[in-house]
Amino acid sequence: MYQKIFGGRLLAAALILVANGVAAETAPAAKPEHGEYRDWRLLGVSLRHEKNSMRAIVGNDVAINAARAGKTKPWPDGSIIAKIKWAERKHPNWEQASVPGEFTAAEAMVKDSKKYAETGGWGFGIWEGKTLKMYDKEQSAPCFACHSPMKHADYVYTLPNLQ
Amino acid sequence: MYQKIFGGRLLAAALILVANGVAAETAPAAKPEHGEYRDWRLLGVSLRHEKNSMRAIVGNDVAINAARAGKTKPWPDGSIIAKIKWAERKHPNWEQASVPGEFTAAEAMVKDSKKYAETGGWGFGIWEGKTLKMYDKEQSAPCFACHSPMKHADYVYTLPNLQ
Repeated sequence: MYQKIFGGRLLAAALILVANGVAAETAPAAKPEHGEYRDWRLLGVSLRHEKNSMRAIVGNDVAINAARAGKTKPWPDGSIIAKIKWAERKHPNWEQASVPGEFTAAEAMVKDSKKYAETGGWGFGIWEGKTLKMYDKEQSAPCFACHSPMKHADYVYTLPNLQ
Repeated sequence: MYQKIFGGRLLAAALILVANGVAAETAPAAKPEHGEYRDWRLLGVSLRHEKNSMRAIVGNDVAINAARAGKTKPWPDGSIIAKIKWAERKHPNWEQASVPGEFTAAEAMVKDSKKYAETGGWGFGIWEGKTLKMYDKEQSAPCFACHSPMKHADYVYTLPNLQ
């Protein structure tokens, strides 16, 4: 569809501009549409230096209640944890501070000990705009592998910070 | 009261241990009591590298509604923005990630364009447990000075990230 509109050459030129960060400076990405996680309460924050990625981790009511009660080993069925990710950038007026740049994605861990028994009771997914789309078994495999070092904390990296 | 319980010498020794970070490693600080900001929704996150300080910035309903509507120049009266601060630490299972360590403080900016007219319409304060205690004029002066470079954004460093 984009090819039909722009033609192949123009599209290629646009992609090169984006890759060089030129387009990002002159024409910010369209305002993203966020899912329900936008109204959830905070569990934690993180900065992954090796990915230049800033994150906020929020939870639905089931997850927040479990975290505040210290009952997260295991997290109860119905818990949903959302990881909201942005590119890291320097604050334009305070260069020693890293703050969120462009929104990159919001991903979910959904606890259902029966449905997702093969991956520690957790299903993995990603919000596409307002809709949470769960990954299939193959797509979930790398998520689960990366979370496996946290088996002792029910596979969750975030250690709740507002208990 | 502490002197009565511990005696002056023991207290002094304990303070030295804390200052050296020994007590912090062996006996974590008591669970902090948080204010109402714990239930507020997210505006942004930051890491101030020069202070090794991780932050989450949340807002009350007035502030969140203003941010989502893009009506923050100026933020409306009644807006309260809370900055929740933790010491930065490496995630114990993912050393390339900075995550919150000990909770250090939660501070507030409260918008009341008449009451706080001399400091850009903002009052500054700090939560002591569940209670928000506003700073007096003298205590507020360094807060306002530090926020003055953001006059173009109504003195707020946080650029809302979930609009």
